[in-house]
Amino acid sequence: MTIDETHDPSLDCWVESAQGHVEFPIQNLPLGRFQSVGGQPRTGVAIGAHVLDLHKALALDLLPAEGEGAAAARQALQNPLALNAAQRIRLRRDLSTLLSTGDGAARRYADELLYAQADVRMLLPSPVLGFTDFQAGIHHTINGRRMRGSGADSLPANYHQVPIAYNGRASSVVVSGAPVRRPHGQIQSPSGVVYRPTQQLDIELELGIWVAQGNALGEPIAVDNADAHIGAFCLINDWSARDVMAWEMDRLGPFTGKSFATTVSPWLISPEALAPFRGPAFVRPPGAAMQPPSHLYSRAQQEQGGLHIGLQVFVNTLRREELGAPLVLVAESHTSHLYWTPAQMLAHHTSSGCNLLCGDLLGTGTISGPAPGEGGSFKELGGSGKQPFSVGEEPRCWAEDGDVVVLRARAQREGFSSIGFGDCVGRVLPAQGMHHG
Amino acid sequence: MTIDETHDPSLDCWVESAQGHVEFPIQNLPLGRFQSVGGQPRTGVAIGAHVLDLHKALALDLLPAEGEGAAAARQALQNPLALNAAQRIRLRRDLSTLLSTGDGAARRYADELLYAQADVRMLLPSPVLGFTDFQAGIHHTINGRRMRGSGADSLPANYHQVPIAYNGRASSVVVSGAPVRRPHGQIQSPSGVVYRPTQQLDIELELGIWVAQGNALGEPIAVDNADAHIGAFCLINDWSARDVMAWEMDRLGPFTGKSFATTVSPWLISPEALAPFRGPAFVRPPGAAMQPPSHLYSRAQQEQGGLHIGLQVFVNTLRREELGAPLVLVAESHTSHLYWTPAQMLAHHTSSGCNLLCGDLLGTGTISGPAPGEGGSFKELGGSGKQPFSVGEEPRCWAEDGDVVVLRARAQREGFSSIGFGDCVGRVLPAQGMHHG
Repeated sequence: MTIDETHDPSLDCWVESAQGHVEFPIQNLPLGRFQSVGGQPRTGVAIGAHVLDLHKALALDLLPAEGEGAAAARQALQNPLALNAAQRIRLRRDLSTLLSTGDGAARRYADELLYAQADVRMLLPSPVLGFTDFQAGIHHTINGRRMRGSGADSLPANYHQVPIAYNGRASSVVVSGAPVRRPHGQIQSPSGVVYRPTQQLDIELELGIWVAQGNALGEPIAVDNADAHIGAFCLINDWSARDVMAWEMDRLGPFTGKSFATTVSPWLISPEALAPFRGPAFVRPPGAAMQPPSHLYSRAQQEQGGLHIGLQVFVNTLRREELGAPLVLVAESHTSHLYWTPAQMLAHHTSSGCNLLCGDLLGTGTISGPAPGEGGSFKELGGSGKQPFSVGEEPRCWAEDGDVVVLRARAQREGFSSIGFGDCVGRVLPAQGMHHG
Repeated sequence: MTIDETHDPSLDCWVESAQGHVEFPIQNLPLGRFQSVGGQPRTGVAIGAHVLDLHKALALDLLPAEGEGAAAARQALQNPLALNAAQRIRLRRDLSTLLSTGDGAARRYADELLYAQADVRMLLPSPVLGFTDFQAGIHHTINGRRMRGSGADSLPANYHQVPIAYNGRASSVVVSGAPVRRPHGQIQSPSGVVYRPTQQLDIELELGIWVAQGNALGEPIAVDNADAHIGAFCLINDWSARDVMAWEMDRLGPFTGKSFATTVSPWLISPEALAPFRGPAFVRPPGAAMQPPSHLYSRAQQEQGGLHIGLQVFVNTLRREELGAPLVLVAESHTSHLYWTPAQMLAHHTSSGCNLLCGDLLGTGTISGPAPGEGGSFKELGGSGKQPFSVGEEPRCWAEDGDVVVLRARAQREGFSSIGFGDCVGRVLPAQGMHHG
């Protein structure tokens, strides 16, 4: 993860929409899967407001036809997550050359190569073979316990040593833009337990980690080797039905209250694109500052392992949207609130020998800050249903039918072009009448 | 699930090893995936001590070459779990004819068609796309709470209404026979938290449910339709590192303490083969006998939904095995201790809209009986580490290196041939030195 010429902020791109683009400048170059109207699923590269069709770039001989470069590009056509680090770096360089003004040979094929992002449908970038959700956001953990009455600043007894996680449901992971149907569930009400639509539909702002290289069953990944297994990052909205969870959770964690939809952003933001935005990991406060167990700790990891990315939650209501009113920013947070690094999460995940696969998606857990307005969930922003926050003129405690929730992430650092993740969007549809299938 | 001529106990089979076979008589006919020495993976049918090669049966024109029968057989070659109910029934009838003495046309090809089970390696019958583990064994739940000090006969507050479950780890599901490496994990010790091999390696005796037909996201499966989504049953040994779990579990359930290996038996025991062994589901004791919520209840389901299958746990130690001593029966249990039916589990799983897939594996949770010697885990059999049980002359509280654990299931009813599941076997290997990968 070194910084090289592909990060040069003075690098110019012949795709006009990429000039000064705050999410997808030529320094980002994330891969994804898209489909144009009537077309087959294809691999593309986000550049400005456009998508570059990688299949066409190969067909037009704009990428190497032989050797490692060709192998990397062809692998990306099959599954853009499955590239190894060397292949990702190679393809990134080739794409940087293809799209830079300095070379510019590809510019005359612009009409064939580029689609407007607004005109294509994004797909999941990879099949999701597993979904694991961590609880690495320390302020969300503290807030959750405070709201359950465990006292201020309390953490689970194992929090400083275990990157707590549970297995989520992979099949219900959907790509940004997919509608989110308000789920039914068993809910405890004053008149007894009923099966009805949730009345506490919530969101969770998370960073996602895509595993590109797995490990063999029985062979844990060492914390210092773990970064090499990570293929990409994304945003995750881990939709949650709080009233369903409150009733179903005993000791085994959330189940139906989380398995109706988990929205991920479509672009594979590479570790290479994020290289300038690495820095020291969470600094443990004095007192709580016991070191993690040695198999999860290394000085190099602690100094290099953290990601520094700003996060935002926007909401629009159906009524505001009908009036043409814009999205409302309801929360801002930052990945520096993560208590564990991605590498520590992978090392812990595999510490008993569990095998990760290419296609495993890991969520960090909700990333909240300590201050008001930094909650990564409606539960935190709305005082657990008791202190509504505002979306323009409209109060909200939980997501209402018709609401649109948009998560955004932006990595910024002086001397570098900013890198964005692309929107992670979901709109709430009303609960379905129960015609059982 | 009607009883038809394929269940006729007087049906004779020309494969001699199937005559009077207590597990794989001609009335069972489970499909599975196997590999002979040097051969490709193939679909086969267990018959007596043999496997019938379905690919060869088709090549030799011993199964229909056209129409629905041919379609069913060809589907079985690809993925024997993916057959729908009509295809399973059709193939079962064709196989019953092929293997019965009455027809007998296939007998002359016996040498080409049959492999000794001892000579082949069994594979997973289907890719495991998801693994969900329920807690439907009511006595295991009561025993667990008692051992944690929650008082006798106590159950979670939601137990009578929620078929409690959590998402397990699918990638670490292995087929019977695969070795089970003693896992490392974070463990709380008197001298602090350490990362070391588990000292409380346990087993869990479970029934497995293979989902053959999924459902669309957002469209729950009704309890009365749920049986149609089930393709097969199997045995599961859900290996558990109790000391790791004790430290890692806060509110989100087990994670690394369960994700190092989950052993499944290799044969797809069909709902059709088990049709004679269905009967009324768990009868709720008076007092606790509140009805489940209406979306999980129907009279028909309650009267038809239960499976009646005897279960056994055998152990051998390395020392006994070296002396040629046989497996020791350490526990007996029965599926009638399941509080929820498979159909209720599927209905609950999808109640918030979660989509099941062909290849989802559901475990019932540990099935223990109420009496001593009926524990489905070593934790229960060995008094949570304090009252060792015996394997011959050797005391056991937890699984030791070299131990072999064998789970067996047998459905029996007067007037019918017994149906077995085949062994679910795992041998414990010593923990690996930590050369991090």
